[in-house]
Amino acid sequence: MSAAWVIPVSVHPPLVAVAISPKRYTYELILSSKEFAINVPSVNMLDVVDYCGSISGRDVNKIASLRLTTLKPKVIKSPLLKGCASFLECKFREAFKAGDHFLIVGEVVRACSEDVFDGIYDVNKFRPLMHLGGDNYCTISPRIFKPKA
Amino acid sequence: MSAAWVIPVSVHPPLVAVAISPKRYTYELILSSKEFAINVPSVNMLDVVDYCGSISGRDVNKIASLRLTTLKPKVIKSPLLKGCASFLECKFREAFKAGDHFLIVGEVVRACSEDVFDGIYDVNKFRPLMHLGGDNYCTISPRIFKPKA
Repeated sequence: MSAAWVIPVSVHPPLVAVAISPKRYTYELILSSKEFAINVPSVNMLDVVDYCGSISGRDVNKIASLRLTTLKPKVIKSPLLKGCASFLECKFREAFKAGDHFLIVGEVVRACSEDVFDGIYDVNKFRPLMHLGGDNYCTISPRIFKPKA
Repeated sequence: MSAAWVIPVSVHPPLVAVAISPKRYTYELILSSKEFAINVPSVNMLDVVDYCGSISGRDVNKIASLRLTTLKPKVIKSPLLKGCASFLECKFREAFKAGDHFLIVGEVVRACSEDVFDGIYDVNKFRPLMHLGGDNYCTISPRIFKPKA
């Protein structure tokens, strides 16, 4: 699924939280498999993200229908999506009910960037797609550095 | 305090979650006052955000020491900070422990933008400051719209 409501929540251990509606197929899958991958989409993946956010995996195999290429994870079993800006392999830890969603907390057991797959890592290439609401998306601006004191 | 780990978590009711270390003074204040304001800083507020993220309110009155101008909230009592891109007035709902932080969940009882204070609302002016990690900050890029199908 496409998910915009994702944050880190702990440094030691490294945990992330994703807000997911219990109506979503992904919610069932995470609770049964006890693991999940966070694929941070690149700015050029808007079509993929929009499609994956509007159709349920209960009805369609989204990877097959979009002919997406997957990458093999190293710790978990959920496949990673080639072309993403970065990847987090996560083990499910806890689910907290918050209104009409659940906060799914996972431990990051592996974090990497596709550039590492290519043998080169360049953090300045990081161009994630971000959801502003509705049909509006953006990426990050160039870096703004703290003025030297 | 400056907080980067903030997301919406529910539509009905409108809830947000903020990950805060229990070591922080803000954590104590939220748990005792049962309310908090989220002031989304503008891109030109890097100095303020960096200072407020590096010093504790236990030691310094940050509003006084930076001579910040506050705006009067309408529902809660915590002051809002003039110059921010937007504001969320929140009532504390629940705190979930997640690793070395707590997920503080609050109900948004009022949301507005400083442009509304000035009588004009222009969402295209929204230029929030975002934390990339370490001393690296950015804002959002220009909008990327979904291609018309």
